[in-house]
Amino acid sequence: MIELYELTGLSPAHSFSPYCWRIRMALAHKGLTAKLIGWHFGEKKLPRGQTKVPVLVDDGEVIADSSAIAVYLEETYETGPSLFGGPAGEAHARFIAAWTDTVLTPMLFPLVVPDMPRHVKPAAQAYFRETREARLGMTLEEAADTRDAKLPAFRAALAPLRRALDSQEYLGGEEPSYADYIVFGSFQWARLVSPYQILDETDTLQPWLTRMLDLFDGLARDAKGV
Amino acid sequence: MIELYELTGLSPAHSFSPYCWRIRMALAHKGLTAKLIGWHFGEKKLPRGQTKVPVLVDDGEVIADSSAIAVYLEETYETGPSLFGGPAGEAHARFIAAWTDTVLTPMLFPLVVPDMPRHVKPAAQAYFRETREARLGMTLEEAADTRDAKLPAFRAALAPLRRALDSQEYLGGEEPSYADYIVFGSFQWARLVSPYQILDETDTLQPWLTRMLDLFDGLARDAKGV
Repeated sequence: MIELYELTGLSPAHSFSPYCWRIRMALAHKGLTAKLIGWHFGEKKLPRGQTKVPVLVDDGEVIADSSAIAVYLEETYETGPSLFGGPAGEAHARFIAAWTDTVLTPMLFPLVVPDMPRHVKPAAQAYFRETREARLGMTLEEAADTRDAKLPAFRAALAPLRRALDSQEYLGGEEPSYADYIVFGSFQWARLVSPYQILDETDTLQPWLTRMLDLFDGLARDAKGV
Repeated sequence: MIELYELTGLSPAHSFSPYCWRIRMALAHKGLTAKLIGWHFGEKKLPRGQTKVPVLVDDGEVIADSSAIAVYLEETYETGPSLFGGPAGEAHARFIAAWTDTVLTPMLFPLVVPDMPRHVKPAAQAYFRETREARLGMTLEEAADTRDAKLPAFRAALAPLRRALDSQEYLGGEEPSYADYIVFGSFQWARLVSPYQILDETDTLQPWLTRMLDLFDGLARDAKGV
């Protein structure tokens, strides 16, 4: 039995974490189902002293860190298509993860974080505000007031993604790969925590996002946005 | 017999083009040798009406565009290791190319272009200056005067590359792949046309750059920088 510990908001459908969504999609890609175990900020019930989600527990084995979990799933389960398409595909996906973690997610953060407190339990509100405002270098309210000004730079920074998806349906080519789930995880996080419109309706990324929401019978779409 | 038409400066060793260097490295990766045919700005001797280099001619077949040439080499020659490691590796490499073409090369351009006229023949000087200044939105001299101010943003933009190479020797993993040649092509171009120090000596990218210069018995290193 596979268990996935993941970050949730007030509703279990509102998983907060881009990294948890990478793994939800990877599990579906492999045709695997997992028992989802919600974890909220500040709770202490993660296995084996882990302090961050996602954590995967598979028949007693504990794997932390989304990249390590994806590699574990690829190596352990021959069900479903490959997540990486071989060692070079896996290595190249690390660059896509690096771009996501150093450009995409940090630039999304100030755009959507002002809307996140509504998903945080009362007991975790002070912790959430303190840690996020330290990362922002300003209050959540100041972030809300300045996000429109940050939007053009965010949209411009998506140029590599648009260019890559100009010539193929998915980052993985004709079929989605873990690289798609890496990038999509951040868009899904934004969609679930904030109504802020991060992309223009006519953005050429929209067809790809629609394809991602359609995958696995609408797995990601069924997690309702706000 | 394979012929590679590539952009050269006053000396044939000074290939100017990041895209031509991708192919020089890809040919070496496949263990292939090609007759290098230098092409200078404004010359008109490219095969079959092609207007841009690189152009590869293989036994009468003409292939233009570096990405198409790399795919052609991968599909045609089973010599040497794979350039992409399969379809997903190839698809993921397209994102790395997209990042290189929309972030890395455009940000390198104003840093090194002020030093390029010294490599341009007298007859092409006016063409070179006019087209490059239009792209810069300023004179070459103004670009030289403002490049120090642009250096921090350039170095910061390399964060995804540093992050990806933190955990692996090459973008391709344990061995170089075409993804490495895509990114390295731009660094090699910068190195050959300009003495401007784009990276700090202690930059964590330096070991990867050294490895790239060492490949194929120092193929890229032997093309002397300025």
